[in-house]
Amino acid sequence: MTLIQGTDPRTGEPVGEAYAATTPDELEALLAAAAAAAPSYAASEPCVRAGLLRALADRLDENAVALAELGSLESGLPLGRLTGEVGRTSGQLRLFATVVEEGSYLEATLDPAVPTATPPRPDLRRVLVSLGPVLVFGASNFPLAFSVLGGDTASALACGSPVLAKVHDSHPGLSATVLDLAATVVAEQGLPAGVIGAVRGNDAALTALRDPRIKAAGFTGSTHVGRMLFDAASSRPDPIPFFGELGSINPTIVTPSAVAARGAAIVDGYVDSFTLGTGQFCTKPGLLFLPRGHGLADALAARVGAAAPAPLLNARIRTALDDGVAALSAAATRLAGGEDAPAEGSWASPSVFVTSAATVAADPAVAEEVFGPVSVVVEYDDLDDLAVALRSVEGSLTATLHVEDDDSLPLDELVGLVAARAGRVLFNGWPTGVAVSWAQTHGGPWPSTTSAQHTSVGATAIRRWLRPVTFQDAPDAVLPASLRDANPWGLPRRLDGVLVLP
Amino acid sequence: MTLIQGTDPRTGEPVGEAYAATTPDELEALLAAAAAAAPSYAASEPCVRAGLLRALADRLDENAVALAELGSLESGLPLGRLTGEVGRTSGQLRLFATVVEEGSYLEATLDPAVPTATPPRPDLRRVLVSLGPVLVFGASNFPLAFSVLGGDTASALACGSPVLAKVHDSHPGLSATVLDLAATVVAEQGLPAGVIGAVRGNDAALTALRDPRIKAAGFTGSTHVGRMLFDAASSRPDPIPFFGELGSINPTIVTPSAVAARGAAIVDGYVDSFTLGTGQFCTKPGLLFLPRGHGLADALAARVGAAAPAPLLNARIRTALDDGVAALSAAATRLAGGEDAPAEGSWASPSVFVTSAATVAADPAVAEEVFGPVSVVVEYDDLDDLAVALRSVEGSLTATLHVEDDDSLPLDELVGLVAARAGRVLFNGWPTGVAVSWAQTHGGPWPSTTSAQHTSVGATAIRRWLRPVTFQDAPDAVLPASLRDANPWGLPRRLDGVLVLP
Repeated sequence: MTLIQGTDPRTGEPVGEAYAATTPDELEALLAAAAAAAPSYAASEPCVRAGLLRALADRLDENAVALAELGSLESGLPLGRLTGEVGRTSGQLRLFATVVEEGSYLEATLDPAVPTATPPRPDLRRVLVSLGPVLVFGASNFPLAFSVLGGDTASALACGSPVLAKVHDSHPGLSATVLDLAATVVAEQGLPAGVIGAVRGNDAALTALRDPRIKAAGFTGSTHVGRMLFDAASSRPDPIPFFGELGSINPTIVTPSAVAARGAAIVDGYVDSFTLGTGQFCTKPGLLFLPRGHGLADALAARVGAAAPAPLLNARIRTALDDGVAALSAAATRLAGGEDAPAEGSWASPSVFVTSAATVAADPAVAEEVFGPVSVVVEYDDLDDLAVALRSVEGSLTATLHVEDDDSLPLDELVGLVAARAGRVLFNGWPTGVAVSWAQTHGGPWPSTTSAQHTSVGATAIRRWLRPVTFQDAPDAVLPASLRDANPWGLPRRLDGVLVLP
Repeated sequence: MTLIQGTDPRTGEPVGEAYAATTPDELEALLAAAAAAAPSYAASEPCVRAGLLRALADRLDENAVALAELGSLESGLPLGRLTGEVGRTSGQLRLFATVVEEGSYLEATLDPAVPTATPPRPDLRRVLVSLGPVLVFGASNFPLAFSVLGGDTASALACGSPVLAKVHDSHPGLSATVLDLAATVVAEQGLPAGVIGAVRGNDAALTALRDPRIKAAGFTGSTHVGRMLFDAASSRPDPIPFFGELGSINPTIVTPSAVAARGAAIVDGYVDSFTLGTGQFCTKPGLLFLPRGHGLADALAARVGAAAPAPLLNARIRTALDDGVAALSAAATRLAGGEDAPAEGSWASPSVFVTSAATVAADPAVAEEVFGPVSVVVEYDDLDDLAVALRSVEGSLTATLHVEDDDSLPLDELVGLVAARAGRVLFNGWPTGVAVSWAQTHGGPWPSTTSAQHTSVGATAIRRWLRPVTFQDAPDAVLPASLRDANPWGLPRRLDGVLVLP
């Protein structure tokens, strides 16, 4: 029997009990429950789903201290960060309650019949409906915000899709606690138990991914595992959408003007950003493009050298970091860092390497993500040199420009270069903050995601779990409430091509 | 050298000249031109793209007679049908011009900065942008509306995506004419030639599908070919979205109440619908569920027996039809039809088979699409019997209910059953008409499409070629016009979560 055991990355010691992987019989019951719950949950009133999301948020907040303490033990992340993450997670659930109530996400569209057209046009009414049960793979690096009740789950529950969450092996105790809490809330709200369930273990998750009752999947993790799961979803007899957020190098470009205006502040912001959460943010700036002759090497070395070691999430990530650093050491020059870290647990010290834009263009492997507190400074000669290197860098969740209003480099050209290869373009900031809001995009071209067409953070993440259905000449009484003449839910709707607010 | 030669399906005789398949050098030039055109075309003003779409529509209409004549020769479809199809195609281009001008499709969303939030929220502005060049596979059955300037192309051009169209082997002459016309219009509009191009031959198309410069693909055709291309798109080192419309059985359910009220009219409508265009509509009703004891067999046999043979689009479809009819003959009972058709060309006579709901449930292969003028009557005993059979039927573009207001069967349950497995649900009509409008869905669960999340007909087809980009704390001057404070394009936008009309 496979056992899943949490470990304190600070000590390497086990935390709490060991959890058995989901058995085939248990998985069958979970899938059957999700499929059974799907039609009624998909058809539920917006207030039912908004009520569930708010109740889940409240329950998380009520248990914030206990959840943060348990999460910190299993992840090695600081208590303050995890307390903040509880708030991020509950805030995310509440945002989707608002999205459900506002109702634009349904894209309700009514085209009246035109009997005089050639051919006569029937009455057509379109709305988005749930695809069905969704499988969500929890991430290691955000044990709450991208896990059992994270953004994928919140957005799926919002639109009426039951969720089966794959618990990450790194935080089984926290996940079990969150699942218990969620199951209690689902029962209190009078909803079927199949609305949310969880599976443990890779075999059960892969079986679920291939099961015809699962209609879509969300994932946050490595490019290697994400690609394997994407291939499994795509090669089903009935392929399903797989929304994976994989590896992202998040290039950050600093112009000569920005170096001159605020080089020291840029060094501070960069080191803070790439070492935040022990460098385990999906949006960590992995490449810092600096103009040759930037004069910031000493300041960088001092800041990185002074940064304390910190625990990585688990031993596997530590091993992968060692491999990545070894590869970088062969391809680039270490500028600073890499001091010895404590031997127990999975500690790591930050490192910065330096290379040239020409090297990146010739060997893009230098510009691939190494998960953990490592980043690469890329020195460029001029705009052409920078552009050639950027064009060889893979797609990213973010790209950042540090520029001045009267910059010596042409901003339009820089924006065009980076907007073509990222889902979010930042100015004079750092990418490791990802606000949960209506306009956020946490997505981008391959390999940062498996589908650049969507986001996993922000209000529009809900679109991933929906498909359109059009009703033609339907009697009003059998239409979904969203499409009835009387508009009982007070939705924004498009009537005969014109958007009309309630 | 591979040659592509049009053939008159009525005679089997060649039509016009033979066209050489695209060579690797030609393909490289086409891909380079599309990629070079992409940034400026994506950034063009809405009036530029709307102007192009309307100019293309006008040019089609001006040449309607010549195009219909050439199309009829190569496809065997009647002249009147093809004249109508020119109008459908130009109407489609004009609808997308309206969509571009209206601007909701951009989903422009502005979240103002909240410096007092924890953590402080930056200014975030989201808009949808073109994915890049799109490869469009033309269909055999709509030589205009789903071909070089069909719906996939119109929707891609609308949002700023250059198009490379794979010409269908069945109508190379018509496609060459339409491409010439389009290229002339593109030049007249002062746009780069790479905005629209065409490739001939399967090898060139598959090479293009795997090329990193192609960012998405659209396809209408068989499940077999569509699956092969979907797999190629999904297995690229950088997978791309592949929007394929494949096989669809389009179940049509007639209740006992509907039979009693208007059985004879239903027989007429059904035979007209499944034989329309020689049964070569994607939305052909392939299954007609009738209550046992319907008493319509004689009327059906008489109508089908009286239907004249008609040419299929090409000899390959004729061979596949023969295979499909042979398989159906072994699994079901022929009710009527199948008379001898002319030996020259690729003529076929309509056929209707009959089977039971229990047979469909036990052997869903009986319920798989056979392309051409063939349909299967499925007799059911009661609602349970009907429901079990429907649950074994694959996903479809459409599902149709023939019901009465005071029906003896529960309408809510019937609607739930069919809405779960189709993209469009019709009441008391026939699915072979597909209006081009804002609310249309021409899509559905596998295998009717490779992505149930989208439509290939109607205004929202444009969403397939777009991805979001969010700008964080960007200076107003470098933002796309859609996101600038002044809203120069007069777009509907979401401001701080609230949808605001211009």
